[in-house]
Amino acid sequence: MEKPYVVGIDIGGQTAKIGIVNARGEILGQTTIPSNQHTDATLFIETLCAAIQTLASDNHINISEIRGIGVGAPNGNYYKGTIEYAVNLTWGGNNLIPLTDIMSKRLSIPVVLTNDANAAAMGEMAYGAARGMKNFIMITLGTGVGSGIVVDGKILYGHDGFAGELGHISIVRNNGRACSCGKNGCLEAYASAVGVARTAREMLETTSRESLLRTLPYEKITSKDVSEAAQQGDKMAKEIFDFTGKILGEAFADFVAFSSPEAIILFGGLTKSGDLIIKPIIENMEKNLLPLWRGKVKVMFSQLKESDAAILGASALAWEL
Amino acid sequence: MEKPYVVGIDIGGQTAKIGIVNARGEILGQTTIPSNQHTDATLFIETLCAAIQTLASDNHINISEIRGIGVGAPNGNYYKGTIEYAVNLTWGGNNLIPLTDIMSKRLSIPVVLTNDANAAAMGEMAYGAARGMKNFIMITLGTGVGSGIVVDGKILYGHDGFAGELGHISIVRNNGRACSCGKNGCLEAYASAVGVARTAREMLETTSRESLLRTLPYEKITSKDVSEAAQQGDKMAKEIFDFTGKILGEAFADFVAFSSPEAIILFGGLTKSGDLIIKPIIENMEKNLLPLWRGKVKVMFSQLKESDAAILGASALAWEL
Repeated sequence: MEKPYVVGIDIGGQTAKIGIVNARGEILGQTTIPSNQHTDATLFIETLCAAIQTLASDNHINISEIRGIGVGAPNGNYYKGTIEYAVNLTWGGNNLIPLTDIMSKRLSIPVVLTNDANAAAMGEMAYGAARGMKNFIMITLGTGVGSGIVVDGKILYGHDGFAGELGHISIVRNNGRACSCGKNGCLEAYASAVGVARTAREMLETTSRESLLRTLPYEKITSKDVSEAAQQGDKMAKEIFDFTGKILGEAFADFVAFSSPEAIILFGGLTKSGDLIIKPIIENMEKNLLPLWRGKVKVMFSQLKESDAAILGASALAWEL
Repeated sequence: MEKPYVVGIDIGGQTAKIGIVNARGEILGQTTIPSNQHTDATLFIETLCAAIQTLASDNHINISEIRGIGVGAPNGNYYKGTIEYAVNLTWGGNNLIPLTDIMSKRLSIPVVLTNDANAAAMGEMAYGAARGMKNFIMITLGTGVGSGIVVDGKILYGHDGFAGELGHISIVRNNGRACSCGKNGCLEAYASAVGVARTAREMLETTSRESLLRTLPYEKITSKDVSEAAQQGDKMAKEIFDFTGKILGEAFADFVAFSSPEAIILFGGLTKSGDLIIKPIIENMEKNLLPLWRGKVKVMFSQLKESDAAILGASALAWEL
């Protein structure tokens, strides 16, 4: 008999979310464990495996009924099954962690790993806005900017498994902002939630214009604050989104010239700002597209609940095992 | 019996090259016809088909022994078999030309079409520097800048067949040079042979520095002149190549972040400048790569004779029919 369930796991800097999913894409049970309590990867993975077993038995599912486990994690290497030098994980820093080897031996279930943005793209293709699409690009606008590129119905992994680092293409070539990757001028330094807050601070500092944002503690301004101010009609806050959207739109035009996707799908915290962010993106992408693509490439929001998307995406990967 | 031959055709703005190729990649016979003598596409295609028949009979090959015909042409659409709005072709301007339909009916042989840079990538993978590679990017540095992107051993065509227009990604976002495509600041406006000559004229005009290039008629300076001056030790000419290589290297770093290729392979007139162009490319690409890719991505020249590459590339496509 076919095994009827898969497990999807989303490992982030603070927590790991675990869900058991059936073939209809329904999450039958889910749990969350902290991911920042260990500095030793082996101990974290043991905790994770134990949590999977508990979750299964709590839902009256036998481990032998689980067909595979899909894991999305920062710096996850699909080809090797390793998490490589993931500085955002307390136990991942200077290491190359053979995650899939350890887990599959421990649980006797096949395990597949990819990075979080690729997992989100898989979820969107299986259950979300990209159903029926074979060529699209997923852009995650969270603390950082991630990407999952789908070509001919498959994630683009490239020669080494690390393709799709679109957060680190150069947007500003001279005197660009420092990025967490060590380079300057990367897309992520401008278009992430952190980048939006940085733009706000720069505008407040370099102008004396009035803004609701001046009433907030300067160092603690977040992209959510900017969004709320813009929704209240604050001009500067709107301009911050226009600036962010311009940078994203220009970058998207280059992405289209690369892989000619049917759509670019946006996911993550910044998408909660809705029209504030997507309107300037579309306007500036269109301006920068070659004539042959104008009016033809969709830009749209994810159709998955943020809390479910990462689990569903990782689980979609496991069905392919 | 398997049909033992294919035909490869390279349609350019001035000429169309036609070759009959065997399974070992040997060109058994070739011919060239002008491609700029017609304004009516149907008449040109008839001339082309007649030339194929003559070439076959001159080489004692029966048309029925030809398995397929591969065609590389500007704006060639792989999915539809059409040449679309190819402004560089005297008979292609405002049209959508169903090339493969007309040819395959006329000759009773299957015909497949792609753009010229994709054909070059196919040739490189079948017979050149990319043998054994499954992920690489072909960049053609000629009058324009073209690209063919190979992912998992296949040309990346994208949603509509037009993926891989890397000559038109934005390199200079403000006050960039006008590009033939109608946009400003495209890679092609700087890194093509025409772009190099333009850089030379800009440097001559905006400085009063000495240079061998000042002895040449200003409007007629070519990238070949710049290359020759640099080889004679001319400082300005060397700087022109450094500038061009910097722009290409920065763009290549972004391409790597997209598809993580094993290699980027250079083809076309500018590659004759050898180290003058490839050294600054590699230096600037490395500077702009994410740490995980540094020292790992090859940049190399095509290993096919320029006169053969286009025919071989188009013919490689025909074997897949």
